[in-house]
Amino acid sequence: MRVYLDNNATTKVDPLVTVKMQPFFEELYGNPNSLHKYGMEVRPHLNQAMGEMYDALNVPDQDDILITSCATESNNAVLKGIYFKYIAKDPDKNHIVATSVEHPAVLDTLHFLSEYGVDVTLVDVDENGGISAEAIKNAVTDKTILISMMWANNETGMIFPVEEVAAFAKEKEILFHTDAVQAIGKVHVDLSKVNVDYLTFSAHKFHGPKGIGGLYVKKGKELPNLLHGGEQMGGKRAGTLNVAYIVGMGLALRQAAGHVEKMNSYVRDLRDKLEDALSSIADTIVVGPREQRTPNTILISLRGIEGESMLWDLNRAGIAASTGSACASESLEANPVMSAIGEDPELAHTAMRLSLSRFTTEAEIDRTIEVFTKAAERLRSISSTYAYTNEVG
Amino acid sequence: MRVYLDNNATTKVDPLVTVKMQPFFEELYGNPNSLHKYGMEVRPHLNQAMGEMYDALNVPDQDDILITSCATESNNAVLKGIYFKYIAKDPDKNHIVATSVEHPAVLDTLHFLSEYGVDVTLVDVDENGGISAEAIKNAVTDKTILISMMWANNETGMIFPVEEVAAFAKEKEILFHTDAVQAIGKVHVDLSKVNVDYLTFSAHKFHGPKGIGGLYVKKGKELPNLLHGGEQMGGKRAGTLNVAYIVGMGLALRQAAGHVEKMNSYVRDLRDKLEDALSSIADTIVVGPREQRTPNTILISLRGIEGESMLWDLNRAGIAASTGSACASESLEANPVMSAIGEDPELAHTAMRLSLSRFTTEAEIDRTIEVFTKAAERLRSISSTYAYTNEVG
Repeated sequence: MRVYLDNNATTKVDPLVTVKMQPFFEELYGNPNSLHKYGMEVRPHLNQAMGEMYDALNVPDQDDILITSCATESNNAVLKGIYFKYIAKDPDKNHIVATSVEHPAVLDTLHFLSEYGVDVTLVDVDENGGISAEAIKNAVTDKTILISMMWANNETGMIFPVEEVAAFAKEKEILFHTDAVQAIGKVHVDLSKVNVDYLTFSAHKFHGPKGIGGLYVKKGKELPNLLHGGEQMGGKRAGTLNVAYIVGMGLALRQAAGHVEKMNSYVRDLRDKLEDALSSIADTIVVGPREQRTPNTILISLRGIEGESMLWDLNRAGIAASTGSACASESLEANPVMSAIGEDPELAHTAMRLSLSRFTTEAEIDRTIEVFTKAAERLRSISSTYAYTNEVG
Repeated sequence: MRVYLDNNATTKVDPLVTVKMQPFFEELYGNPNSLHKYGMEVRPHLNQAMGEMYDALNVPDQDDILITSCATESNNAVLKGIYFKYIAKDPDKNHIVATSVEHPAVLDTLHFLSEYGVDVTLVDVDENGGISAEAIKNAVTDKTILISMMWANNETGMIFPVEEVAAFAKEKEILFHTDAVQAIGKVHVDLSKVNVDYLTFSAHKFHGPKGIGGLYVKKGKELPNLLHGGEQMGGKRAGTLNVAYIVGMGLALRQAAGHVEKMNSYVRDLRDKLEDALSSIADTIVVGPREQRTPNTILISLRGIEGESMLWDLNRAGIAASTGSACASESLEANPVMSAIGEDPELAHTAMRLSLSRFTTEAEIDRTIEVFTKAAERLRSISSTYAYTNEVG
């Protein structure tokens, strides 16, 4: 049995989505911007997919949903758009507030822009991996043009106070962006209730294909293009439309929005079962209160066990988990969120993330509990740091 | 019979490519940056695809081929990268030379950057739609940091003097970028023989999927990322890798490079047959000497016949052609290359582009000749401008 518990990194494409995309490679292959039949016959499919996205986010079609190539592009488009529209032209509006646990697509972009006059304040998480709205509010100055705060964290699953920060930003006339990559399909992302100016999403996190994402832009909050060129997307994001993937993402997003209840019952129950079993192992820390997290995620540390060692034992048994974001996995650095939480350095190196999906089965969870528990025993029996800790503790 | 003669806008995905991509949606769906089996098992496929691209362009693997979401992204990455690396930091190196017939992804980006201190010189085409290397050389100043010139034009198929301009740029220590979107698979694009610093390509122009492209970057000529974030592509283009499409593009590019001879015999013969028949219609202009064009393209004007009218007649008969770039087609403006050539304004409104592919058949060409010829007669019989022209002519 193979078990895939790395759904916060990427997901399997829903078979319904794969089927839906097929005709757009060899049959309905016209460029939808073309005026002939090959182009025109594609448009109803695109329109339907776009409609599904507007419905899923519950936004009016006067707002924009720009199709991008990934969440990274969406995040870069917001931050560099803010740079070109405001900061490059007015040094008195050069301050951006974000959290220290944003995705690298936000943090690295801010780091880059800081060379060009952008002043960045990163707000730290608390001991639970949470962000307090108060801390965000305190970071704001007269020069703040944008707050960028993710809806839910990729490592811990912790849900951030988006509604409160969004309301605060509106009151202060500060723009508000949220990277909702880890929230879509897991919590209700209803933009009629939360005052978001920009929202990032990515299909491959909710059983759509890799290489396509979206950027919601509220009417009146348009930014300069990240991709200039042709007239696609009303001239706001150039590039020939990836019709197959757009159609696929429309369906995937509708499916994801429709499965939020399942995520919060079936998947949550499986996650809780797994978490109960793993946290019953001695000297174990799970980050963040369960009810404040997305229903599919566990970030767990076992004292004395390197995350990579556990990953390897699980992997040999066909179980896929991770020590942190795949976007940073090649560097083998300490888990950045664990580091931000500020627990002792060992914990950051012992962090393991397990993330479920609606395709996860109970048999897979049972198998994972069995393998994980045995691996914990084995690894601790050969761990010098764990024995040492026990002796002095 | 349906006939697709708009292959410069986009192409059908090669059935071999569609098949090749399938396993990467539901089976081999791991994130290749993940350290577990699901991630690792994807890597050999990616490596093979990347190898195919390095081979097709004949470049060493010390250079970079960055995977992007489209040619538009590649072009934006070059121009905005040049802006951030050089121009934003040194106003004495703020000049870019390009041609006036570049793709909107170049022209619009330059127009945008001109608001931020970039000085742009656009070199016009001659009466054949060609660009002289001399004209490019004359446009260069002490402040020139970059020359951007397409390898072949999308509207006319005219091949530009890339080798000479590249050699000149190297001698003058000016960076050289070429948008080779319309050249790949049609002429030999061998970067061991042409000294290019940056080269743009796009899969959907050579029977790969829409929504994936590439940017070749010579070693030592790296630019700041357009997409900052994770460590993908050696940290030079962030975003979860679109594995299915990368694998598809690798195969499509290998196929395209392998079919250059077929394009220059089979497809060229079909194109010439079509061109001979259409240009035998009275008062007809085909832009550019045949031997200086890509082998699949015809840009033709029939005096007195609006391009859109002809398009409509062809379309009713199931034949797809265009009046110009699909990236600008919704605006229904005069063909921009025709305008740049400087023929009288009527010609710009009468331009029709027909572009073949290696999947075009002789029966399709025969059918097109028949329909086109009849349509020309019909449209001229009801054309007030054509009758008028004849009377005064």
